[in-house]
Amino acid sequence: MRRALSLAATPGVPLGPNPRVGCVLLDDAGATIAEGHHRGAGTAHAEADALATAGDRARGATAVVTLEPCNHHGRTGPCAEALVAAGVRRVVFAQPDPNPEAAGGADTLRAAGVEVEGGLLEDEARELNTVWTFAIDHGRPFVTWKFATTLDGRSAAADGTSRWVSSPAARRDTHRLRALCDVMLVGTNTVAVDDPLLTVRDEHDQPLARQPLRAVMGERDLDPGRRIFNGDAETVHLRTREPDTALKQLYARGRQHVFLEGGPTLAAAFLRAGLVDEIVVYVAPMLLGAGRSAVADLGISTIADAFRPRVTDIAVLDGDEPNVRLTLAPARTDQGA
Amino acid sequence: MRRALSLAATPGVPLGPNPRVGCVLLDDAGATIAEGHHRGAGTAHAEADALATAGDRARGATAVVTLEPCNHHGRTGPCAEALVAAGVRRVVFAQPDPNPEAAGGADTLRAAGVEVEGGLLEDEARELNTVWTFAIDHGRPFVTWKFATTLDGRSAAADGTSRWVSSPAARRDTHRLRALCDVMLVGTNTVAVDDPLLTVRDEHDQPLARQPLRAVMGERDLDPGRRIFNGDAETVHLRTREPDTALKQLYARGRQHVFLEGGPTLAAAFLRAGLVDEIVVYVAPMLLGAGRSAVADLGISTIADAFRPRVTDIAVLDGDEPNVRLTLAPARTDQGA
Ligand SMILES: NC(=O)c1ccc[n+]([C@@H]2O[C@H](COP(=O)([O-])OP(=O)(O)OC[C@H]3O[C@@H](n4cnc5c(N)ncnc54)[C@H](OP(=O)(O)O)[C@@H]3O)[C@@H](O)[C@H]2O)c1
Ligand SMILES: NC(=O)c1ccc[n+]([C@@H]2O[C@H](COP(=O)([O-])OP(=O)(O)OC[C@H]3O[C@@H](n4cnc5c(N)ncnc54)[C@H](OP(=O)(O)O)[C@@H]3O)[C@@H](O)[C@H]2O)c1
Repeated sequence: MRRALSLAATPGVPLGPNPRVGCVLLDDAGATIAEGHHRGAGTAHAEADALATAGDRARGATAVVTLEPCNHHGRTGPCAEALVAAGVRRVVFAQPDPNPEAAGGADTLRAAGVEVEGGLLEDEARELNTVWTFAIDHGRPFVTWKFATTLDGRSAAADGTSRWVSSPAARRDTHRLRALCDVMLVGTNTVAVDDPLLTVRDEHDQPLARQPLRAVMGERDLDPGRRIFNGDAETVHLRTREPDTALKQLYARGRQHVFLEGGPTLAAAFLRAGLVDEIVVYVAPMLLGAGRSAVADLGISTIADAFRPRVTDIAVLDGDEPNVRLTLAPARTDQGA
Repeated sequence: MRRALSLAATPGVPLGPNPRVGCVLLDDAGATIAEGHHRGAGTAHAEADALATAGDRARGATAVVTLEPCNHHGRTGPCAEALVAAGVRRVVFAQPDPNPEAAGGADTLRAAGVEVEGGLLEDEARELNTVWTFAIDHGRPFVTWKFATTLDGRSAAADGTSRWVSSPAARRDTHRLRALCDVMLVGTNTVAVDDPLLTVRDEHDQPLARQPLRAVMGERDLDPGRRIFNGDAETVHLRTREPDTALKQLYARGRQHVFLEGGPTLAAAFLRAGLVDEIVVYVAPMLLGAGRSAVADLGISTIADAFRPRVTDIAVLDGDEPNVRLTLAPARTDQGA
């Protein structure tokens, strides 16, 4: 299973809406017959990948898989049936499939007389696909809210200028995190005021090939001349002010990880709705004394009600102006993942 | 000289208005005859301490001292004369005495026929007494401004409550830093609103024996019933709004290190006057969304004018709510120390 987990974690595999999965086929003596892993949406599942390599040698083998073999007819056929057809005798998997459309693989296998064991190193397997698991468990994408602030809580000076609060290293780090998500979300006012590109760019400021969906939330019309409507990435206008509705719409489009970049008004609406799952803050060692607040009113009036998320990481991003990055996890009562 | 420097740095020596100094007496063969160090105001200087141990054996010896032997009649006689009287043949010192009242020791020694050499490991010696050296060089105390803030730049919630923004570890750390200073400075309004004690306290909240001077700055009268007038430490009211005047008054009282604890109005006045030498910020991983700003208006209206001090240290203070401490050095054009 450790080998299957490391196959699943093969670097360079493009993240899509699909989970990372690894599979190892073993003979009776425990020797490896074939290995496989999933390379992203539209490509073979890990089991199919391993079975293709094994050919006839799969007959009588044990399949070790990081995720319960799927049971649905997606772009590839159900893996449970493929394992049965290949004559696999025994299946050991780590994480049960949380996806209601794909679950039931274990039952299908058992019904066909295959010996099945689940739950081996399940925590490690979930760790591989936390966002994917979260999204399925909650029926909505995982939300990372990112903001940048001066030491005194400002996101821009009194005249609105804000280039640059964050250091170059913090900006590069932001693009790295953007690339891990599949939606960039902002409110209509950020588009109106800042005209941002909302793309993931490399160190030469060139857009990467794979781009998250650009989503703008709010009821007012958007000027079609804004830069978010250039061809660098797909763009969608979510004409709602309900964070829950917006997330459900994004989930229906197969999106699992929203990078919420503001502005403060929209972020406050998500926070108040309890729909922020992770906060990434870049603190720049700079004082403005006045200017726009990085965080909008949260309805908190007394210190006892302060919003105190759990700190999961603190990092210093080196440079002439070292920025501090804090990663925070709001306490969730509905925590499923 | 390395030995003299480490004697000077003897831990536990109470800081007073005097510098840390160490002295080693060597014979012709380079063997140690006696050692000495200064233990704080009112006690023997390092040279006198070593000479007392050496007695007659000082005759013909070489004295290695971290600071140029003093030339003035303070509470102890001038060390330059004492070294001559003891028959010391040669003096090697590190840092020249920056104090105009005490300087000239080298000349006195030379005039008496003693061989004198200065500047050996001078930087290390200055490092021992940065605040003392700074105060003498600038004719005013060194100013450390400390503030505590939430991640969104608030020092209190909308209703004024602020207990506690900082974590217990950050509060302990603040008391540790207070203990290194000899003045606690706040504005009249902080005394009126918060009624703080402004003492250095141990982990049981008991005041330490040695306390910095409590200084309150501003023109309005102070209510004599306020807690700063309890007997735990000396208290002074500086009836001025001029940071420069206040610092000169404190320096005239022999004070060298001001710990400026606010409020925001007074701190902004010091910053605008260019009279902050060090900033210590505790950032608590908490959001308020509203409430009092930790930093008051600094007269900055555009991002290009942002106040960007140099970061000298970043530390994470562990605990349930890890706080980040940043230490910053405003760029000084008049930097003498
Ligand atoms: N420092 C940073 O990291 C950062 C990041 C982004 C933006 N900014 C700054 O933030 C400024 C814009 O901030 P902002 O707060 O005004 O804009 P915003 O949050 O981007 O947009 C606010 C708008 O979003 C719509 N909206 C959608 N859902 C909402 C809800 N649940 N509650 C309230 N409004 C909702 C509303 O417009 P409709 O009328 O269309 O519904 C509202 O006016 C810009 O100037 C930008 O510079 C800073
Ligand atoms: N988070 C923290 O670390 C922290 C620390 C301390 C205080 N606080 C909070 O800060 C609040 C008080 O802040 P504050 O800013 O109002 O009070 P402040 O800075 O303590 O006092 C302001 C007063 O100081 C006097 N002053 C002296 N020199 C001045 C100058 N150069 N310019 C302007 N005023 C000068 C003025 O009063 P006169 O009329 O008497 O001249 C002025 O009204 C309190 O509520 C407290 O809770 C927070």
